[in-house]
Amino acid sequence: MISQLPGLGYQFKNPELLELALTHRSHGTANNERFEFLGDAILGMVVADVLFQLHPNSPEGDLTRLRAAVVRGETLADIAKNLNLGKYILVGSSEKKTGVIRRRSILADTLEAVFAAVYLDGGIKDVIRVITDLTSKTIAGLPAAGTLKDPKTKLQEWLQARSREVPEYTMIAVRGADHAKEFVVECRLPDEPEISFSATGSSRRRAQQAAAELMLAHLQA
Amino acid sequence: MISQLPGLGYQFKNPELLELALTHRSHGTANNERFEFLGDAILGMVVADVLFQLHPNSPEGDLTRLRAAVVRGETLADIAKNLNLGKYILVGSSEKKTGVIRRRSILADTLEAVFAAVYLDGGIKDVIRVITDLTSKTIAGLPAAGTLKDPKTKLQEWLQARSREVPEYTMIAVRGADHAKEFVVECRLPDEPEISFSATGSSRRRAQQAAAELMLAHLQA
Repeated sequence: MISQLPGLGYQFKNPELLELALTHRSHGTANNERFEFLGDAILGMVVADVLFQLHPNSPEGDLTRLRAAVVRGETLADIAKNLNLGKYILVGSSEKKTGVIRRRSILADTLEAVFAAVYLDGGIKDVIRVITDLTSKTIAGLPAAGTLKDPKTKLQEWLQARSREVPEYTMIAVRGADHAKEFVVECRLPDEPEISFSATGSSRRRAQQAAAELMLAHLQA
Repeated sequence: MISQLPGLGYQFKNPELLELALTHRSHGTANNERFEFLGDAILGMVVADVLFQLHPNSPEGDLTRLRAAVVRGETLADIAKNLNLGKYILVGSSEKKTGVIRRRSILADTLEAVFAAVYLDGGIKDVIRVITDLTSKTIAGLPAAGTLKDPKTKLQEWLQARSREVPEYTMIAVRGADHAKEFVVECRLPDEPEISFSATGSSRRRAQQAAAELMLAHLQA
């Protein structure tokens, strides 16, 4: 049983925690899915904290977008690849290991589980250090917070660059009592009306932004 | 300037942090929105950790649902009301304070900002203690993890109880390379086809669950 991963910068006192973090669900009922839940939350907090300190003048919306760029699966899979994490993942005998460890979402999920294992083994300070170190290059390479555009603006620019019509936003529903309203907005493209994306938010604007984000992700795919 | 909130169980060394946490954006450019971003992430992590320890046998999906029940705006607004937080919120002179502090979303957001202020003033251990104390009643009152149902099941039961048709799930798109696919699924009701909800997920099942959750929230509103 291994007690450390080269490049992680952490030596486990209890190697069983690391082993569980590396165990894919195809391997059995004792697997890393619970660790992934915890690790995802820890990662979100640590990256929020780092960005909060690093960008003292950025508004909340910029911080949210910067964080999303760091904690998304693609970024985590890159970090996991640099750690050669796939080599250590335990998969079920029926699974083709090469296939499993090539899947970037599994690499990303396993990395989150490893963060949870570090937290459970060493505590909050160790996991803050590990995550800060591993994400430092990504964070240093982020675009300036001020240059980030909100999803509605990005969607509009994407469409205009292709001489397409601007999107339509329709309020589908407003729910909840007066003091706790939630808005449901649908985003639809006049020149491609078959597909729509609906999203909720605590204001009309937030719901529109969320719907625009879904639409943009769809178009860029 | 106050340095503590009755019931919070924390004495601020730097009361300016508490004041900023209590400052609604209607009051000026120095407001609590950045704190809210950080506090939300801290809250998510602390509640994840508490639930992870408290339910050692619950799968990831149960933990996710339990956490959502704790960190949702309604729960936070209740906690904020018990703290009488509205009394301390600073709002712009043009705002009617009574209106602002009655809005439950503002109470919830301000509570998150206060968590960030505790973290910035005292560190991670103090904020873990504060959040754990304030959420303990809610967490103790949660239904048993095993009794929680996934959104698809809940949606189907909700519809069947009203003798309505079962929902249809349609795969709208699969995007991304082979190793990092993302699925887009639409949920639609055959007997109410005007409204649909689309959602994304890293598997077909996850996308269906997310779309079912949007639909159910819409129906229950």
